[in-house]
Amino acid sequence: MNSINRRDALKLGATASLAALAPAVSAAAAPAMAAKHDSVPQWEVFEASFAGPSAGNPFVDVSFSAVFTQGNRSVEAHGFYDGSGTYKLRFMPDATGEWSYRTASSAPELSGKTGTFACTAAPAGVHGPVRVASSHHFAYADGTPFYPFGTTCYAWIHQSDELQKETLESLRTGPFNKIRMCVFPKSYQYNHNEPAVYPFERDAAGKSDFTKLNPAFFAHVEERIADLRKMNIEADLIVFHPYDRWGYAAMGAENDDRYLRYLVARLSAYRNIWWSMANEWDLIRSKSAQDFDRYFRIVEKEDPAGHLRSVHYSHTMYDYSRAWITHASLQTYAFDQTASWLAAWNKPICFDEVQYEGNLNSRWGNLSGEEMARRFWLGVIAGAYVTHGETMLDPEKPFDESANPTLWWAHGGKLHGTSPARIAFLRKLVEETAAPGGPGAKRFGLDAAVPAGYYMNALAQDATGRAPGAILYFMDYHQPLYYDFPLPEGTWKAELIDPWAMTVTPLEGTFKTKSRIKLAGRAYQALRFRKI
Amino acid sequence: MNSINRRDALKLGATASLAALAPAVSAAAAPAMAAKHDSVPQWEVFEASFAGPSAGNPFVDVSFSAVFTQGNRSVEAHGFYDGSGTYKLRFMPDATGEWSYRTASSAPELSGKTGTFACTAAPAGVHGPVRVASSHHFAYADGTPFYPFGTTCYAWIHQSDELQKETLESLRTGPFNKIRMCVFPKSYQYNHNEPAVYPFERDAAGKSDFTKLNPAFFAHVEERIADLRKMNIEADLIVFHPYDRWGYAAMGAENDDRYLRYLVARLSAYRNIWWSMANEWDLIRSKSAQDFDRYFRIVEKEDPAGHLRSVHYSHTMYDYSRAWITHASLQTYAFDQTASWLAAWNKPICFDEVQYEGNLNSRWGNLSGEEMARRFWLGVIAGAYVTHGETMLDPEKPFDESANPTLWWAHGGKLHGTSPARIAFLRKLVEETAAPGGPGAKRFGLDAAVPAGYYMNALAQDATGRAPGAILYFMDYHQPLYYDFPLPEGTWKAELIDPWAMTVTPLEGTFKTKSRIKLAGRAYQALRFRKI
Repeated sequence: MNSINRRDALKLGATASLAALAPAVSAAAAPAMAAKHDSVPQWEVFEASFAGPSAGNPFVDVSFSAVFTQGNRSVEAHGFYDGSGTYKLRFMPDATGEWSYRTASSAPELSGKTGTFACTAAPAGVHGPVRVASSHHFAYADGTPFYPFGTTCYAWIHQSDELQKETLESLRTGPFNKIRMCVFPKSYQYNHNEPAVYPFERDAAGKSDFTKLNPAFFAHVEERIADLRKMNIEADLIVFHPYDRWGYAAMGAENDDRYLRYLVARLSAYRNIWWSMANEWDLIRSKSAQDFDRYFRIVEKEDPAGHLRSVHYSHTMYDYSRAWITHASLQTYAFDQTASWLAAWNKPICFDEVQYEGNLNSRWGNLSGEEMARRFWLGVIAGAYVTHGETMLDPEKPFDESANPTLWWAHGGKLHGTSPARIAFLRKLVEETAAPGGPGAKRFGLDAAVPAGYYMNALAQDATGRAPGAILYFMDYHQPLYYDFPLPEGTWKAELIDPWAMTVTPLEGTFKTKSRIKLAGRAYQALRFRKI
Repeated sequence: MNSINRRDALKLGATASLAALAPAVSAAAAPAMAAKHDSVPQWEVFEASFAGPSAGNPFVDVSFSAVFTQGNRSVEAHGFYDGSGTYKLRFMPDATGEWSYRTASSAPELSGKTGTFACTAAPAGVHGPVRVASSHHFAYADGTPFYPFGTTCYAWIHQSDELQKETLESLRTGPFNKIRMCVFPKSYQYNHNEPAVYPFERDAAGKSDFTKLNPAFFAHVEERIADLRKMNIEADLIVFHPYDRWGYAAMGAENDDRYLRYLVARLSAYRNIWWSMANEWDLIRSKSAQDFDRYFRIVEKEDPAGHLRSVHYSHTMYDYSRAWITHASLQTYAFDQTASWLAAWNKPICFDEVQYEGNLNSRWGNLSGEEMARRFWLGVIAGAYVTHGETMLDPEKPFDESANPTLWWAHGGKLHGTSPARIAFLRKLVEETAAPGGPGAKRFGLDAAVPAGYYMNALAQDATGRAPGAILYFMDYHQPLYYDFPLPEGTWKAELIDPWAMTVTPLEGTFKTKSRIKLAGRAYQALRFRKI
């Protein structure tokens, strides 16, 4: 599956780049004219540029939006000021066929502009934005299941160009299809560098004017999001975070909201965006849960694509039952609570911070690779999804933070750990086992039809759609010499799996409930059953 | 420490046997006379036999007790009917010097008997019964700390003589100083054999008369308790349990209470008794928590030695805050809750069932040896105590329960697992690290003076008695390349410990807070610090 995804991603990359760049070029050629594209593929970015006022503070003074129409259907998208008197509109058409639009603005020269374009079929390998599916899972808009196997590189887009390229190369060859990353630069232990560009205008003394956004900064963010899109990697974009020495964490409600609206206007046409409203929201002292409620309502209202929305915590959970939360984004490794949380929230669960593989001094950053891989298995078996992170110091270098080590978790770069290969193995197992056709028809996850057993997950349903068709077992630290597998009705084939050695060994014969199977008699083994 | 204990135990064994046997011999010689011993060592068994009524049902009809007096102090001890018209009194003197006693009975011929004996100093290696010390820990009556490293052989005394001898030999050479064992035989998965003797009289059809106890059965129980006493192993004696096909779990309150009083009268003079009122009390359908409350009140009132009292559960915890509970006996491996439970109950905590090392089909019985050893470390580091169990099938034999495998957890026999050697290693570390003089003076356990860190335990206090003197760290699945150990004030020596390889490697130099120490960079390592 991975190699196919890679090929699709490469093909897609070319298409997507053309689609994203073409409007900008045409706008540059005719800045005051409404753009006219003959066609934009489904789930790619339609963009049009317009000349407008540059006096005063356009970010504050000028409103600009458009209504996109197809038949009786209308969708509102906000435009944004891109500097130098240029205003842009972006829109991700989600249905093929003819679309038209008409602008509205507080500036007469931006009002009443109209245009049309045809939305053509999506290229092969493009499945649209990710949505919630079957309550507890995810699928692309076209129904293709999406199983998040994420990683974390909080500040990778604020490192040197060379390091960013290295990160992209690691992501291209790595096992991850989602990345947690911050919009704002990061100030924290091991994170002391200044970004190359800043999100707001600064005076000579370095004081930011939070009313004046810096289009170059956001153009860089979107370039990286487009890079990820080429590789079919979802950008779990962190809007606010507490690791800050520039003031971005405490700009005040008016500036927060303007920044947030600007992000939505610029980025929501990228199909691979997930809105993570904060990392560790409860550590941002200047913001309350009520502030986050307001942010979510803004995004719900202004994001025409309806991207996924969540928020990550440190100690105090945000209330994931709230209507505007699409999925839980947890910092915990209490996988045994998954079932009760799924029942309580009826939403997918991403264990987005389960500590990191590494060898740091801090205990959040020094898991063994075995333990990180184990946590992926525990999360998947529980019916949830898990996110990786890596904080590996080079053992040959002195233990000195001032040496500014490059740590994947913050800076990106290269992966050094032993867990990514095992995560790739698990992802492949899940993707090849889960039934095609989308989780709507073939559910992935815990299934009440499967007899209870805490290290088991029904990965797919059978042809009837009403009974399990594939089951994955993980034995964790248990080492039974044999096990009476409580298989549901039917005849099953079985494979012994070694999650660490990454081997799959088919067992001879077929099995029915209660099938007694001799096992390796050692811990950390798994089995896969598939219904014949 | 272990080898010294062994030697002491052997020396003690000879003494204890003499003390236990001598009165029985003298009683046999003069059954109707009050016994007169010149001397009994402290914490050994004084026993006297008397002839009394044998008609009717002496267990029901005859009351018999004595008051033991030393100076102004009086202690009541109940006697018991030992069959064939013989009544016995047992008493464990807890203070040296002259003692006298006077009997009372509903039978005139057992009333008003008197006698005296001298209680001499305890032999070397005899420290008395175990008590709670420093709220959360244990010590023998003479103040010597006792750190429970227990095991589980529920039904070992109901197996063949040969197997019982093998069990005793395994215990003699093993790392354990406490054993959980049932009075009643056990009927459960893998436990299908009949005992050689039964606790109550049975008719030809096998129906028990619960009003008539079988002295031979209880003589066998006490013989095994004496065997354990020789080896300085505490008998955590399980009074009731649900694994029953003979009716012992549902005898009714009157028979329960009579049986319990009989046990107390016969056994409380054995210093190595702990009363475990049940295994999985909540699975005994015929008994309520109120029944257990009553049992505890009976034992509190009638046990002159005041042995430790607890009860073990399956799903529903007994309320360990109740006044008559001396320590918690948990079935869980939620070690991270230890601190809150210690605070809530202010009593020692024994994690008495944390699943078993083994390879059974059932997940309670198939932990890897690594995981069992890890659980001991986690428990000790949390400031609690942990109990071992082993359920290893012979991998060379067919997986067939009807083959009646010998499993340590139920039957005793030989230990096959990999954890006991590591438990011995940890026990040695704890015993040699904890300061001498008893936990009253030198606390073993979590200490508020030590900066927080969840894998750390202050094992002893320094010479001032007010600050930590030794600290044990366990890194679990963390693999820091270095760690800034937050040592309390003072200068410290350090050793790297590999809990699985069982190595202790002294580090060069001395350390002060915050001492940065380079580590192995792999998981499951430990460190010990000792203040200079």
